[in-house]
Amino acid sequence: MSGNTFGTVFRLTTFGESHGKGLGGILEGCPAGIPLDPDAIQGELDRRKPGQSAIVTQRKEADQVEFFSGIFEGMTTGTPIGFLIRNTNQKSGDYSHLKDSYRPSHADYVYEQKYGLRDYRGGGRSSARETVCRVVAGAIARQMLPGVTFNAYVSQVGGLKLEAPYQSLDLSLIESNPVRCPDPAMAEKMEELIRKVRKEGDTIGGVVSCVIRNVPVGLGEPVFDKLHARLGQAMLSINAVKGFEYGSGFQGVEMKGSQHNDAYNPDGSTKTNYSGGIQGGISNGMDIYFRVAFKPVATLLQAYETINSSGETVGLQGKGRHDPCVVPRAVPIVEAMAALVMADFYLLSKLSKWSAGNGSS
Amino acid sequence: MSGNTFGTVFRLTTFGESHGKGLGGILEGCPAGIPLDPDAIQGELDRRKPGQSAIVTQRKEADQVEFFSGIFEGMTTGTPIGFLIRNTNQKSGDYSHLKDSYRPSHADYVYEQKYGLRDYRGGGRSSARETVCRVVAGAIARQMLPGVTFNAYVSQVGGLKLEAPYQSLDLSLIESNPVRCPDPAMAEKMEELIRKVRKEGDTIGGVVSCVIRNVPVGLGEPVFDKLHARLGQAMLSINAVKGFEYGSGFQGVEMKGSQHNDAYNPDGSTKTNYSGGIQGGISNGMDIYFRVAFKPVATLLQAYETINSSGETVGLQGKGRHDPCVVPRAVPIVEAMAALVMADFYLLSKLSKWSAGNGSS
Amino acid sequence: MSGNTFGTVFRLTTFGESHGKGLGGILEGCPAGIPLDPDAIQGELDRRKPGQSAIVTQRKEADQVEFFSGIFEGMTTGTPIGFLIRNTNQKSGDYSHLKDSYRPSHADYVYEQKYGLRDYRGGGRSSARETVCRVVAGAIARQMLPGVTFNAYVSQVGGLKLEAPYQSLDLSLIESNPVRCPDPAMAEKMEELIRKVRKEGDTIGGVVSCVIRNVPVGLGEPVFDKLHARLGQAMLSINAVKGFEYGSGFQGVEMKGSQHNDAYNPDGSTKTNYSGGIQGGISNGMDIYFRVAFKPVATLLQAYETINSSGETVGLQGKGRHDPCVVPRAVPIVEAMAALVMADFYLLSKLSKWSAGNGSS
Amino acid sequence: MSGNTFGTVFRLTTFGESHGKGLGGILEGCPAGIPLDPDAIQGELDRRKPGQSAIVTQRKEADQVEFFSGIFEGMTTGTPIGFLIRNTNQKSGDYSHLKDSYRPSHADYVYEQKYGLRDYRGGGRSSARETVCRVVAGAIARQMLPGVTFNAYVSQVGGLKLEAPYQSLDLSLIESNPVRCPDPAMAEKMEELIRKVRKEGDTIGGVVSCVIRNVPVGLGEPVFDKLHARLGQAMLSINAVKGFEYGSGFQGVEMKGSQHNDAYNPDGSTKTNYSGGIQGGISNGMDIYFRVAFKPVATLLQAYETINSSGETVGLQGKGRHDPCVVPRAVPIVEAMAALVMADFYLLSKLSKWSAGNGSS
Repeated sequence: MSGNTFGTVFRLTTFGESHGKGLGGILEGCPAGIPLDPDAIQGELDRRKPGQSAIVTQRKEADQVEFFSGIFEGMTTGTPIGFLIRNTNQKSGDYSHLKDSYRPSHADYVYEQKYGLRDYRGGGRSSARETVCRVVAGAIARQMLPGVTFNAYVSQVGGLKLEAPYQSLDLSLIESNPVRCPDPAMAEKMEELIRKVRKEGDTIGGVVSCVIRNVPVGLGEPVFDKLHARLGQAMLSINAVKGFEYGSGFQGVEMKGSQHNDAYNPDGSTKTNYSGGIQGGISNGMDIYFRVAFKPVATLLQAYETINSSGETVGLQGKGRHDPCVVPRAVPIVEAMAALVMADFYLLSKLSKWSAGNGSS
Repeated sequence: MSGNTFGTVFRLTTFGESHGKGLGGILEGCPAGIPLDPDAIQGELDRRKPGQSAIVTQRKEADQVEFFSGIFEGMTTGTPIGFLIRNTNQKSGDYSHLKDSYRPSHADYVYEQKYGLRDYRGGGRSSARETVCRVVAGAIARQMLPGVTFNAYVSQVGGLKLEAPYQSLDLSLIESNPVRCPDPAMAEKMEELIRKVRKEGDTIGGVVSCVIRNVPVGLGEPVFDKLHARLGQAMLSINAVKGFEYGSGFQGVEMKGSQHNDAYNPDGSTKTNYSGGIQGGISNGMDIYFRVAFKPVATLLQAYETINSSGETVGLQGKGRHDPCVVPRAVPIVEAMAALVMADFYLLSKLSKWSAGNGSS
Repeated sequence: MSGNTFGTVFRLTTFGESHGKGLGGILEGCPAGIPLDPDAIQGELDRRKPGQSAIVTQRKEADQVEFFSGIFEGMTTGTPIGFLIRNTNQKSGDYSHLKDSYRPSHADYVYEQKYGLRDYRGGGRSSARETVCRVVAGAIARQMLPGVTFNAYVSQVGGLKLEAPYQSLDLSLIESNPVRCPDPAMAEKMEELIRKVRKEGDTIGGVVSCVIRNVPVGLGEPVFDKLHARLGQAMLSINAVKGFEYGSGFQGVEMKGSQHNDAYNPDGSTKTNYSGGIQGGISNGMDIYFRVAFKPVATLLQAYETINSSGETVGLQGKGRHDPCVVPRAVPIVEAMAALVMADFYLLSKLSKWSAGNGSS
Repeated sequence: MSGNTFGTVFRLTTFGESHGKGLGGILEGCPAGIPLDPDAIQGELDRRKPGQSAIVTQRKEADQVEFFSGIFEGMTTGTPIGFLIRNTNQKSGDYSHLKDSYRPSHADYVYEQKYGLRDYRGGGRSSARETVCRVVAGAIARQMLPGVTFNAYVSQVGGLKLEAPYQSLDLSLIESNPVRCPDPAMAEKMEELIRKVRKEGDTIGGVVSCVIRNVPVGLGEPVFDKLHARLGQAMLSINAVKGFEYGSGFQGVEMKGSQHNDAYNPDGSTKTNYSGGIQGGISNGMDIYFRVAFKPVATLLQAYETINSSGETVGLQGKGRHDPCVVPRAVPIVEAMAALVMADFYLLSKLSKWSAGNGSS
């Protein structure tokens, strides 16, 4: 598939640029007969929305989603769900100084090289604003999988790292603070760090961790579409992501097999969960957990030097409204992408096994 | 796509189980007119082959590839390339004790749950033996991209970690030792550790790093098929992989944007390369580098307890021929998957931009 | 792919129902740098629009397309083109009598069986109104292939059949009459027949023929995506289509090979063209021509009996605004679908052959 | 998809050329737990095999299929089914005279233009020999859908046309004669005609009709993958096919809606079946029937003139072993492709509707 579509049978295709008239998408493959709660969808959009707290960008966007199809009398109809989010607060004037310049570590240069031209207003298609569509689709996916819970949270900002395993955290506290860290004391420190960085006109990276619970056994399609491979693609496709690990992750490489192996209980559950809920690319019913690394975003509110399209050095002054640290707003995006992956594999898993009643007319 | 196909226009589909009659694949989308060197393909297979050194599995497999189509008089014809590698040394008897038991942290349990039945001989489709097909296709991809170089190497085994950045290493030394670590002193220590672990009937994890050079600007398809998202999926689809990071990776989260941004030189290259050669999901012409974490493989040559399909606890004695540490043999697999990703995006990049001569008949 | 997407690298995905808020689509894979003429797009929509003449449905729809992305300063940017056509004149009240009844030879019954529920207002997703999206995308495809011409026309209405081969027709006359038949005398007879059928509250079938000229040699992807196989799928996916033939078609079966073979001229063109411009599934540079059969549409303005969802017989009176014969309005839809097929294969054909300059960075 | 893959979730990918070492394929998406009867698969191959009667090509091929994966102890395992049919009787010497010449109405010229080079031995990938892979996969599809019956038969050879509707034919007689026409008297005339044409070194076209019975309601995916649109693509992808129609087909265009509409019986079945078992692109439970037009094949055993790659006129003498009329051997291929389409849509139909038990873990 080309780059604007995600999923196999539960598929999202998106369009839109940060400073065009709007963004939207088509969600295909949602089965008929699922009651949709529009408030829950808008609620997820609100979690991602700019301007929701003092530590995120102050761009004002209503981020109101309008649905055009696929829903009738509150239920999905099995036909594609088309939706639109209009851009209401883009200030293209903010970007005219960038028309001929390439901001460092942005996509300006590569888009212009790849396409021969670019929409220079705020990153165009490369802007994280595109993720608004993912949140809409992810919120629908979650309503299709009511038993499965998705809890992402901020586990690191700069050098401030939550060392406790997810099992020891009270995930109900995630939304209790603007950082979305379930440890309130740590959240305060993180918030302080973000404020400090912001004051400097600088930015800082972070990590989002995610736990998925009540996952049916059997999701994931070997060999290239292993569950964690698709989760990895999904997370790495989010703006500013630099790394993905699940279960024991990079730390697991230091372990021996005799330590790392997860011994079975008689019911098929395991005593430990270094596997992160996935074995051989297929969910085993245990909690799925993974970590996603976000770099410090490239847009600074400082003066800096860069080049223009003629290869000349130019001085620029960063302006506009930007996030000093993306991880708080990335939390609902990580959950949304995880939900898209799980919904797709959930549907595919219905095709794995032949059963009585199949093949008869 | 279903799980057996990788790629969009340059596409590999594979089949085969570790203890069936053979494995193979179909490579589609390879343009016509590329001269193929069969020795280079076999050479990559030999790098992946079991039994090549004392620190890898001693299973004996010729791993001889037979081509059936798509090549005529030494050139690709544009039609699909079908190929087969016969299994010659499978010893299914080795596995009869596993018929009803689920080895911990293997795919035995989830395959049986997902499919209702399984080929219990050595993991079947979940075996890393499937990667032999990827190496064949990757070797063809590399011949299609003669200017691009792919160098993977072992950068960590257990706690032994090569801290030096790839730029300071002599990558020509990778093949000088059985570990495939370009630092000979470190390689010796790693080899020692692997031998020790093996003697204990245990296994150990490791990290493979990879550097891709001479990459054209413009590869990668936003937004879901960002270059690093596909590389991530590709790597995570390799058996035993638990994590993927590129450029600054997980360490980058501790940096500030003002440090992390890669300033441009007048020619569009950058002074630093925290971006790892990719910006906005598109190659920028700098070196691409990434790291892949491999867990300690689950197969131990020790006695252990587990459950059988009736949920009863059973004692088993690990046997068979297995790798105490997979990273040395994973090196050519990482390169192969990277080459598949790059070849696919290379072809797709020809469709990004309209140019004179297009649209005319 | 699922059913809402057409094309491989030049791909249209659509959404929308006849009586929802609107219909729209996402066109992916359009290369960057193509100047788009919005009037030409709207012009194609106007050719398909209801109410354009006395012999088509009198539903009033502006069919105004709004673009949201993928176009910047009049040029395609290489990012997906999102568009929307709002429904403005749907009268859902017209359909309340159908809530529990299944109109004969409509999709009412099968949609309800397949999805368990349905949007009963005017056919929902099964309405030919969906083709408005195809016309938008097709008009863009045509602007990408400026040298290629697409001329569809009505060659049969009921028993009135234009026997002359396309070569002897003056295709510039197609738009000179509301039937879109290039033979003015025949057009008059056809119009008369349509008026008569309409007065009876009945409908009548017809045939649309299509000629594509100036096609580059080499379009089409063996073996399943032969050029005519994709054209066939494209045409058969249009509402009310019952058959497709190209070149000699069904009549060709009566010929002998010695008559049917198209002898070559020295320049590779052929003296005859029974092949219809396609050999082995690949365009050979000659005119492509094909014929598409449309059934009489099922919606009658007569009283009739049918069943309801309880299996009871019910009497209904057909009402609403419908086409007595769909072929005049099908002409731009046939051209649009043909253009989508050709644009997709045109892009794919750039990947068939290796050439100097490939593979270098 | 690229051209070598057919299907969405039940997917066949093929490779191979007529004069290479062999042909084969990978069938993905076949659920686990289906018992496979190898004799039934070989039986279908035998129906397609050359040399089976005096009126088909006398090339001798065992057409023995070898399976490599996806089947364990007689059952499908849910993993991809890889298979190979070796070429045993190719006589490449027969083709050396064609190295530089383009046979009229063959794919020689277009392959060379598209790919820049070609395997000139017997058509390479464009040969109908490729359909051997489709027959293998189709035979598996049929075993997955035991209740559904597929009956294709020859309904026309040259001008000899079986006018009787399929309902009045005894389809059990299809295999009673080498033509595969269920009307023995007509079969005799057809056979005579084929013998006569063959003696002349000429070829003749024909029509294959097909009836599919016991089809579940609800198969087909609107809007682009309507059931008949995919059947059409499937049939048009078979070598030498020039047209496809279903239900009332081209003749239906002469009817009025009031005649053509299929009135419902209380149980949802219809009194007539002009719809051909498909409404709105979805099966309605009635018999599906369609007709496929095959041109007279291009290979003649006569002397003829053509051009070579330098554009010079050359005289050639047709030789080799070829079918004077392809329709008898096309019968099992039509059935196989129909079965592939139905199996794919059968699996997809399981995802249309939400039902109790879904979404729970």
